[in-house]
Amino acid sequence: MTLRPPGLALGVDVGGTKVLGLLVDAAGVVLARRLVATPQLDCSDLGERVADSVAELVTELIAAEGVEGDELALGVGMPGMMGLDGVLLFAPNLKSASGADMVSLLAGRLGGLKASVANDADCAALAEQRFGAARGHDDVLVVTLGTGIGGGAIIGGQLLRGGRGFAGEVGHMVIDVNGPECPCGNRGCWERFASGSGMGRIAREAATAGRLSSVVELAGGDPEAVRGEHVTRAALIGDAEALGLIDEVGWWVARGLANLVCVLDPTCIVIGGGLSDAASLLAPAAQRHLPALLEAGTERPEIKVVGASLGPEAGAMGAAILARSAQ
Amino acid sequence: MTLRPPGLALGVDVGGTKVLGLLVDAAGVVLARRLVATPQLDCSDLGERVADSVAELVTELIAAEGVEGDELALGVGMPGMMGLDGVLLFAPNLKSASGADMVSLLAGRLGGLKASVANDADCAALAEQRFGAARGHDDVLVVTLGTGIGGGAIIGGQLLRGGRGFAGEVGHMVIDVNGPECPCGNRGCWERFASGSGMGRIAREAATAGRLSSVVELAGGDPEAVRGEHVTRAALIGDAEALGLIDEVGWWVARGLANLVCVLDPTCIVIGGGLSDAASLLAPAAQRHLPALLEAGTERPEIKVVGASLGPEAGAMGAAILARSAQ
Repeated sequence: MTLRPPGLALGVDVGGTKVLGLLVDAAGVVLARRLVATPQLDCSDLGERVADSVAELVTELIAAEGVEGDELALGVGMPGMMGLDGVLLFAPNLKSASGADMVSLLAGRLGGLKASVANDADCAALAEQRFGAARGHDDVLVVTLGTGIGGGAIIGGQLLRGGRGFAGEVGHMVIDVNGPECPCGNRGCWERFASGSGMGRIAREAATAGRLSSVVELAGGDPEAVRGEHVTRAALIGDAEALGLIDEVGWWVARGLANLVCVLDPTCIVIGGGLSDAASLLAPAAQRHLPALLEAGTERPEIKVVGASLGPEAGAMGAAILARSAQ
Repeated sequence: MTLRPPGLALGVDVGGTKVLGLLVDAAGVVLARRLVATPQLDCSDLGERVADSVAELVTELIAAEGVEGDELALGVGMPGMMGLDGVLLFAPNLKSASGADMVSLLAGRLGGLKASVANDADCAALAEQRFGAARGHDDVLVVTLGTGIGGGAIIGGQLLRGGRGFAGEVGHMVIDVNGPECPCGNRGCWERFASGSGMGRIAREAATAGRLSSVVELAGGDPEAVRGEHVTRAALIGDAEALGLIDEVGWWVARGLANLVCVLDPTCIVIGGGLSDAASLLAPAAQRHLPALLEAGTERPEIKVVGASLGPEAGAMGAAILARSAQ
C-alpha cells in the first residue's frame, strides 16, 4: 500500500450539470480528481441517482489512488437548502431531488464512510477562507454569482449553518419590495439585480433603450439577445459603456452586501461563482460603492471585497474541509 | 462578610435616557438594582461622563451589597456600534460619545474590575436566549423595536459579534431601495417600516387618508398627531381598524425577518424593545406572514416568533451574562 500523508479527505460538489470529486490532503493539495455528468434532472428518483453518482465517483477515486476507505473523510456539497438532518429540503436546480435524505442514501451505498453534507456555497466559503482569497480572515462572507446568488459565511472562524442548516441563502433577501418578480414568489430579491441573470436583465433594458452598442454587437445585433457574458466580454476589452454597466451592477452587488454587512460584519467578502470574469470586475466596483451604503461607512474599518481565487473547484475543496472538520 | 452564591455579575445597560445596573447571580436572579439618569447628551465629553455614571453605579452596587470587586464580572451594554476593540464607533442616540474608548475609560475608573462591553441589543439577545422567551433554543434572533430597530443573534449557542463587533445592526438593512429616506443616508431601511416610528408613519398615512377613526380620536383628533402607541392602545381594546394596521405593520416586520432568516436561519425569533405592548401584538402577526415570504416556506420547519419576556431589564441582564462568559 502506498504511504499517504495524514488527513486525506474526499470532497464532492454536486452541480446542476456536473459532479466533481477531489481527493485532497490536509494542505489543500489536490491528489486526484474525477468529473461525471449529473444524472438526468427529470428522473423521478433523482436523489437516489445523485447518490449513485457520488458513490461511484468516491469508489473510483479510492480504487485508483489506492487509499483505504477508513483513512478517509467524505464531504458533499449540494446545490440547495441542505438540512442539518441530512435532507435536501429544496433545490431549485435539482428540483426532483428535493426531499431526498442524502445522508441516508449515501450511507446505504458507502457503508462505513459517513458523509458530511452541506450547501455548495457554504463549502465554497470554507475553501476560500482556508486556502483562497480570504485566507487569514476569521469573519468571511462568500457570495457566488451565477443564475442566482448563493452564499456562505464563516464568522468567528466557524461556518455559519443556523438552526436547520439553511443559513447563508442570501440570494432571496429582498432589497426592493416593489421590484421585479422572482420565481420564489417574492418581488425584488437581490438575485434579480446582482446575479448573472440580473446583469443580463439590466443590460437588456439598457440595450433596448439604445445604449451598449458594442455589447449588442457581441450579442449578434439583437438587444433582446444580450446576456451577462456579452457585457463582461466587452468590459474586459475596455468598452466604456460596458464598464459603466458593470459599475451599475456593482452598485446592486454592494447594496446587497451592505445589508449583509449590517447583519454579519465580515472583514472580507469574496465574490465568486460561475461568472469568474464578471466577479473580478464586479468586486472592485462593489468595493467602491460599499462605504457610502453602510451606516458610519467612512468611520468603520475597511471591509475587503475581492474576487474568488480557487475557481470552479472551490465547492469540492470546501466539501473536503467540511468532512475533515466533522471527524 | 456575607456569604454569596458563586458567579455573581454586574450588568449595566446604558440607554439614551437612563442607565440601569443589576447585580445578578448565575441563575439570573436579580439581587440588586440601581437606576440613574444618562448624563446630558450634549456635553462634549459624553463618553467620559457615561463612564463616570457606570462607575458610580457599580461602586454603589458593590458597596451596598457588600460584595468584593474581585468576585465580580462586569458587563456593559451600549446603544450603538460597539467595537470589539472597546471603542464606541457610532451611537445615534449618544452621538457625542461616538469614538469614545469605553473599555479604557471604564478601566481608568474601576481599576481591576475589567468590563466587557457590547451592543445593547446583543446583550438583550443573550438574556432572552438564556433566561427569557427563547430559552432552549441555540439559534435565536432578537429584534428590538423602538425609535429604530436593534438586533442581536445567538447562532450555534454563540453570540454573533462579527469581525469588528458590529454584527446584528439589522435596522438599516434596506428592503425598499426606492422607499422613504432614512437619517442614515439610505432609502427604505427596515426601521422606516417596522419600528415604533415606522408604525407611526404608516398610521399617519392611513389616518390622513381617512382611516383609523378611533386611533385619531386617541391622538386628540389630529391625524398628524397619531403615533405608534395610539395604534397599540386602540388595538388592545379590539378596534378593528387598529388591528388591521397592526397586521399591516406585522407584514413589514415579517418582511425584514424573512431576509434575516435567509441569512441566519434561527429557530426562534424574539420581538422586544421599548414597545412591549406593540411587540406582543406584532409577534403573532409576523408569525402569520412569515412562511409566505420564505423560500420553501411551507416545507421548512416552523420558526417561532414570540414577544420578549424579560421586559426593560433584558439589556442589563444580558450584560451580566456577557461578563460571565468573558471570565
